Amino acid sequence: MASNKEEVKLFGMKASPFVCRVEIALKLKGVEYKYEVEKFQNLSDTLINYNPVYKKVPVLVHNDKPIAESLVIIEYIDETWKQNPILPSDPSKRALARFWSKFIDDKWLDAIIKVSSTLDEKEIEKGIEETEVALQFLEGELKDKFFGGEEIGLVDITGVFISFWLPIVQEVIGLKLFTSEKFPKLYNWSQDFNNHPIVKEILPPRLETLLAFERSRSESLAASK
Amino acid sequence: MASNKEEVKLFGMKASPFVCRVEIALKLKGVEYKYEVEKFQNLSDTLINYNPVYKKVPVLVHNDKPIAESLVIIEYIDETWKQNPILPSDPSKRALARFWSKFIDDKWLDAIIKVSSTLDEKEIEKGIEETEVALQFLEGELKDKFFGGEEIGLVDITGVFISFWLPIVQEVIGLKLFTSEKFPKLYNWSQDFNNHPIVKEILPPRLETLLAFERSRSESLAASK
Repeated sequence: MASNKEEVKLFGMKASPFVCRVEIALKLKGVEYKYEVEKFQNLSDTLINYNPVYKKVPVLVHNDKPIAESLVIIEYIDETWKQNPILPSDPSKRALARFWSKFIDDKWLDAIIKVSSTLDEKEIEKGIEETEVALQFLEGELKDKFFGGEEIGLVDITGVFISFWLPIVQEVIGLKLFTSEKFPKLYNWSQDFNNHPIVKEILPPRLETLLAFERSRSESLAASK
Repeated sequence: MASNKEEVKLFGMKASPFVCRVEIALKLKGVEYKYEVEKFQNLSDTLINYNPVYKKVPVLVHNDKPIAESLVIIEYIDETWKQNPILPSDPSKRALARFWSKFIDDKWLDAIIKVSSTLDEKEIEKGIEETEVALQFLEGELKDKFFGGEEIGLVDITGVFISFWLPIVQEVIGLKLFTSEKFPKLYNWSQDFNNHPIVKEILPPRLETLLAFERSRSESLAASK
């Protein structure tokens, strides 16, 4: 489907795991794109016009057609550029990949937000328990080097939130949720995934991301007092 | 892909909109299936074994392979049985269908749960406002008879929650959220959709569903006091 005429733009922010997912997918496919930098709390009118429902990044614009929501964008990328498939071809394996990637966004993310966005001890405790249950499910699901097998797939890309951001989040909060002792397979996966040449190229600098998370967390905790 | 040997089972409950979605998809495809009735708060070990993560219906079991989560199941059905497509073939139209169907589950559902699961007036007011904003987005998105065009598609099936259950929910709560005056296009759609021969055949009896919702709401409100 790719042609010389086509134009691919990605509206994003460097510290966003959701944007990072889309970048990994585009790089895996070898699709060239223009990165349009958006600023947190000061989004461009163009972005809001492209995503009036959620008013957030990432938005992929392909030949003037905007697509929002990271997992929807990744499926679009996989269907538009066929090389290096991100989803398996077998329908039941595709269903499993969608199930676990939705699980990361629904269950795991919900739990870690509980841990990181409050100072209420009971709420944090509940969040820690739910995070660990979710990680345990993923630990059990990991059968090969990657969730996608020998190559990176949908669940791996969705899981960049766990491989790269979770260690940062736990460092800021001062917890040890995700360790090689508790989740040996998942921990190894996170190292392999973060060190995959394409992923490594896309990931933002660790210290910068840590400081940005620390700052935004302090601000939102202060605002919620 | 269909063969005489294959076995399709659907684990469900009659009053569940999520199960209803899967039944509509199966009937649209003309796939024969065995319905395994599960009981609320008393799920079978088989079901829990098939869906240990969420422990809920619907679960579709095709040739011994279980698939959970209604939207994941519908994509699987569409990929396995090619007749009467549920998603469009064009990648950007597929992305739009996925976006709006995710929107119904993320935004609209979240808002209506706020309205129906509490007696806190401020929370209800917030939920009403969010529900109306979500319905307004859907009203704006509806361009043809159905979201899928002249035929029923993914967004229509996901929206059974709005076409059939929302009028029941608002009757029980005593609100007029979804009316033909406020949302004329969406209201007409809901009538056309509920009266589609396949949908009509699947929908549970209205009065029974209303009483079941009334009862479960009273119980959960009493438990949360």
